[in-house]
Amino acid sequence: MKSYRKELWFNTPARVALMNITPMVDECLRESGIKEGLVLVNAMHITASVFINDDEGGLHQDYKTWLEKLAPHDPTRQYRHNDSGEDNADAHLKRQIMGREVVVAVTDGSLDFGPWEQIFYGEFDGRRRKRVLVKIIGE
Amino acid sequence: MKSYRKELWFNTPARVALMNITPMVDECLRESGIKEGLVLVNAMHITASVFINDDEGGLHQDYKTWLEKLAPHDPTRQYRHNDSGEDNADAHLKRQIMGREVVVAVTDGSLDFGPWEQIFYGEFDGRRRKRVLVKIIGE
Amino acid sequence: MKSYRKELWFNTPARVALMNITPMVDECLRESGIKEGLVLVNAMHITASVFINDDEGGLHQDYKTWLEKLAPHDPTRQYRHNDSGEDNADAHLKRQIMGREVVVAVTDGSLDFGPWEQIFYGEFDGRRRKRVLVKIIGE
Repeated sequence: MKSYRKELWFNTPARVALMNITPMVDECLRESGIKEGLVLVNAMHITASVFINDDEGGLHQDYKTWLEKLAPHDPTRQYRHNDSGEDNADAHLKRQIMGREVVVAVTDGSLDFGPWEQIFYGEFDGRRRKRVLVKIIGE
Repeated sequence: MKSYRKELWFNTPARVALMNITPMVDECLRESGIKEGLVLVNAMHITASVFINDDEGGLHQDYKTWLEKLAPHDPTRQYRHNDSGEDNADAHLKRQIMGREVVVAVTDGSLDFGPWEQIFYGEFDGRRRKRVLVKIIGE
Repeated sequence: MKSYRKELWFNTPARVALMNITPMVDECLRESGIKEGLVLVNAMHITASVFINDDEGGLHQDYKTWLEKLAPHDPTRQYRHNDSGEDNADAHLKRQIMGREVVVAVTDGSLDFGPWEQIFYGEFDGRRRKRVLVKIIGE
C-alpha cells in the first residue's frame, strides 16, 4: 500500500467563497503515482467545507443565499458561540450542511467521477490562511 | 491490496425517490471477494444522494416533506441556477443535506452494520438514467 | 494491509447530547499500530451522528437550538414515522444534517488533524445503549 499527503492552502478575500479545487486534487493524484485506491479531501478547519457539486455560478449564488437563510450570520449575538468574542458561529453551522470531507475513488490513475462532479472548497469564515488535506491511499 | 469497481444504474419514474440499494452493494462485496477493507458508495450525479438510514415508509415520507420545506422545488424561478433553463436547483440543495456518499467498513466479508442500517439511493431529479459508484478496497 | 475494528458504547442520560470521543479514537489508533491509512468512525445507529467540529460549549448549545429549529421534536405527531408508536422521527432528520460518519487520515501514527478538529458523537435519541464503529485500514 502506498500513501500520499499534501496540504492545500487558501486565503479567500471574502468571508464566504466557493472555489473549484479539482485541478489541484488531480495534480496530487498524479504526483502520488497511485492507480487504484481512495482519495480523502477534507477541510482542516471547522468553519470550512469540502464538497462535490456543479461548477455553475448561478448554483453557487443559490448555495450562498440558501445557507444564509438556514444559518444566518446576523445578528451575530443570536449565537452563544459568539459570546466569547467570535463572530463565526454561523460558519460552524453552514459547514455541517455542506460537509467536512469527500472520499473519491481512484480508478486507472484518475478521479472516478460522474459527468459533472467537481470538488469545491467552501469557505464560510475566510480572509485568513486556511488549509485542506489531501490524503491518498492505494497502489 | 485488492480493488473492485461497479456502477449501479437507476431510472426512477418519479422526480423524487428513495430506494434501498443494500442488496446490490452486498452483491458487489460478494463479487469482490474482499474480507477486510472499506466500501465507498457514491452518487455519480450531483442531484442525487447516497445515505444510510431506516427502511421505513413513514420516515421516507417525512424526509420528502422535510427536504421540500428546507429546499422547495417551486417556484423554480427563485433559483439563479434555473435561469439557464434548468428546473433542478432544489435537487442540488437537497443532495447536500442528504450527502453524496457513504463509507462502510468491511469485516469478515460483510458490510459492518448496526441493527437498522440500510443504504439508500436518494433521487431528487429523476426520470432519467443515472448511476451510483461502488468502489471497494482491501484484502 | 492491516485492519482494526472496535465498537465504542454510549448511554447518554439526556435525549440529545454531544460527546467528544477523540481520546477514544486516538486510543484505538494506538492499539491498531497503523501508521499510514484511513480511520472510519461511524454511528451504528440511525438516530445518531459522528462529526468533526469544535469542542466549545456555546457552539454545542447553538447546534442543539439550530437542529431543533430545522427538525423539531414536537409535536411528535407531525411525522409519519411516529405513527407506528415511535417518537424519534426528528432524530433521523437531525442525524442527516450532522452526518453519519467521518473519515480521517492517519499520518505517522496520528490522526491528521487541523488545529481545532475534534471528533464528536452526536446523540439525538439517547437514554439507551448505542454504539459507534471505529475501523482503521493501512500499514
